[in-house]
Amino acid sequence: MEQRVFNFSAGPAGLPLAALQEAQRDLLVYPGAGASIMEISHRSKAFEPVLQSARDNITQLLNIPSNYKVLFLQGGASMQFSQIPMNFLRGTGKSADYILTGAWGAKAIKEAKKEGATRTVWSGKEEGYKRVPAQSELDLDANASYCHFTTNETIEGVQFQTEPEVGTVPLVCDMSSDFLSRTFDVTKYALIYAGAQKNIGPAGVVAVIIRDDMLAKVPDGLPSMLDYKLAADNDSMYNTPPCFAIYIVALVTKWLINDIGGLDKVDARNREKAKYIYDAIDNSDGYYRGHAQKDCRSLMNPTWRLPNEELEAKFVKEAKAASMDGLKGHRSVGGIRASIYNAMPVDGCKALAEFMAEFAKKNG
Amino acid sequence: MEQRVFNFSAGPAGLPLAALQEAQRDLLVYPGAGASIMEISHRSKAFEPVLQSARDNITQLLNIPSNYKVLFLQGGASMQFSQIPMNFLRGTGKSADYILTGAWGAKAIKEAKKEGATRTVWSGKEEGYKRVPAQSELDLDANASYCHFTTNETIEGVQFQTEPEVGTVPLVCDMSSDFLSRTFDVTKYALIYAGAQKNIGPAGVVAVIIRDDMLAKVPDGLPSMLDYKLAADNDSMYNTPPCFAIYIVALVTKWLINDIGGLDKVDARNREKAKYIYDAIDNSDGYYRGHAQKDCRSLMNPTWRLPNEELEAKFVKEAKAASMDGLKGHRSVGGIRASIYNAMPVDGCKALAEFMAEFAKKNG
Repeated sequence: MEQRVFNFSAGPAGLPLAALQEAQRDLLVYPGAGASIMEISHRSKAFEPVLQSARDNITQLLNIPSNYKVLFLQGGASMQFSQIPMNFLRGTGKSADYILTGAWGAKAIKEAKKEGATRTVWSGKEEGYKRVPAQSELDLDANASYCHFTTNETIEGVQFQTEPEVGTVPLVCDMSSDFLSRTFDVTKYALIYAGAQKNIGPAGVVAVIIRDDMLAKVPDGLPSMLDYKLAADNDSMYNTPPCFAIYIVALVTKWLINDIGGLDKVDARNREKAKYIYDAIDNSDGYYRGHAQKDCRSLMNPTWRLPNEELEAKFVKEAKAASMDGLKGHRSVGGIRASIYNAMPVDGCKALAEFMAEFAKKNG
Repeated sequence: MEQRVFNFSAGPAGLPLAALQEAQRDLLVYPGAGASIMEISHRSKAFEPVLQSARDNITQLLNIPSNYKVLFLQGGASMQFSQIPMNFLRGTGKSADYILTGAWGAKAIKEAKKEGATRTVWSGKEEGYKRVPAQSELDLDANASYCHFTTNETIEGVQFQTEPEVGTVPLVCDMSSDFLSRTFDVTKYALIYAGAQKNIGPAGVVAVIIRDDMLAKVPDGLPSMLDYKLAADNDSMYNTPPCFAIYIVALVTKWLINDIGGLDKVDARNREKAKYIYDAIDNSDGYYRGHAQKDCRSLMNPTWRLPNEELEAKFVKEAKAASMDGLKGHRSVGGIRASIYNAMPVDGCKALAEFMAEFAKKNG
């Protein structure tokens, strides 16, 4: 068999080897089903516990109170960009607040504008998306239908360290790229959504955590597939869900609980991992220049530049030859991006930090 | 390892063993990628040929002309129920024609009504969805924005043998449960959609074949994820597609081409398979009573009743003990349903037919 490499891909991203091995073992016959997990009814006795387990694991990891529902939907975060304003903005006569800290937030605003009025209550665009706002910089509307932000911007590598304070306005959040990567207080949120393909599974499923009072606001007449209440009332099985993707989420979240030891440990491990990279940047005498302002650095997607583009290309090429793949920065930002989501082992970050020091010495 | 059974599940349904075995072999390291197919970027050099192959295989199998696009979307047929009228009915001032032959068609109409005016041009409801209409029974609107029908109704086991003739009105079709199961002329259609989880892959991806003139009609301002033109312009990668599900579609369609020998062979094989079951019904002296009118019988989902519900329960139980699973009819129809999609081997249908004869003899 070919070798697995250290996979710094921004998403779809690496998965825990233990989860992949279990999926591989059971791919032809899921225990008790007489068929692959891909081949059985979503309403079968074999599949329903799988969905339940994915839901229970997330609930346990985040200590989610009983007035929230955990849903599994399709269409990724991009469908959520529309589904949220369709459910909570359209026809309300209110506007929605958006905090803009990067490329994904900009896409969320673009879709919301199609459904109703929005206010961009802070934008990092002119500064090149290098930081998140201070609380005092937010021009909040106390009557907004909701306030939306993006916890972690994958392209720029900028991450909120704590939630913005929005009073009684429902706080809505795209947590696609740092969901289940660190501890946080779910009760501060009205709705959290996360495409699975960074930290918790493969592409093709999005996890949504939604508070009951939001479900009560869902208007009549929405397309059934975009109606949060219908999804909640049907336990994410209004139609056939993306069963295999949910199965992998169940395996990955089991790994987070049993192998890593719960979210406190996940959090500490991810901080340790990111520190290797940021230390390599900070100890390079300016050879590596981080994109994000230090107090807004992402634990998931460190981004940095080298002295010039030729050296960046050389860095990516030589890293790949050393079994570290996926390090090229997003075309809109350039430079280097190391996506170090949950499944990236500590050793991968250590190896990259060592490579960085070595590369700077040779090419400085 | 546990045994694989003959899987008569209505969907998600069986997959070809060869496809599952290849997926299992490569699950940890996709050749040339250094990682699982689930772990690599959808824009990577390893994944793009996979999507291309799924598209090319479908194009080859159906001999699709170059004025059509093949797309891979999310949300299943249920999302298409809304996406179609959002793209082609809303705001047109026209109404859409729907031919109603079963439970899925009814759901399609329900969603369309949220977006604009619809006309049900024929309904099989009062007859208990036992047949499809004759051409002469259709009350068509020559000015309709489109005419929608469901080629095969999985719950009732009723299938169109040929397309309805709708003149210049765009013909739109839910082919979820018989897509790539038989030969047909794509050029009669303006739009075909099919959830993968019956004949071509796992749940979580829907294939759409759409004619260029329909793409030209897509209005501005739709949610990006529901805009066919945007999907076509971005080769199904406006956002991260459901990569693993598309990969399995590529493997299943490769199997249809290489192992079965193309769509003519698939068609003949599925007719042979269905004949075993229908012969067992017709040769039972009325012990088994088929639900569908004979000239509307489904090649995919034969449905039938036994003399009483106790015998039906016994049939399902004893069949399961004989390694034939998933035969219970849908709760709304009752009785028995044998879903015999592409991946069901001929031997599975033979075995079921023999079991049926034996069961009737013992319990007649």
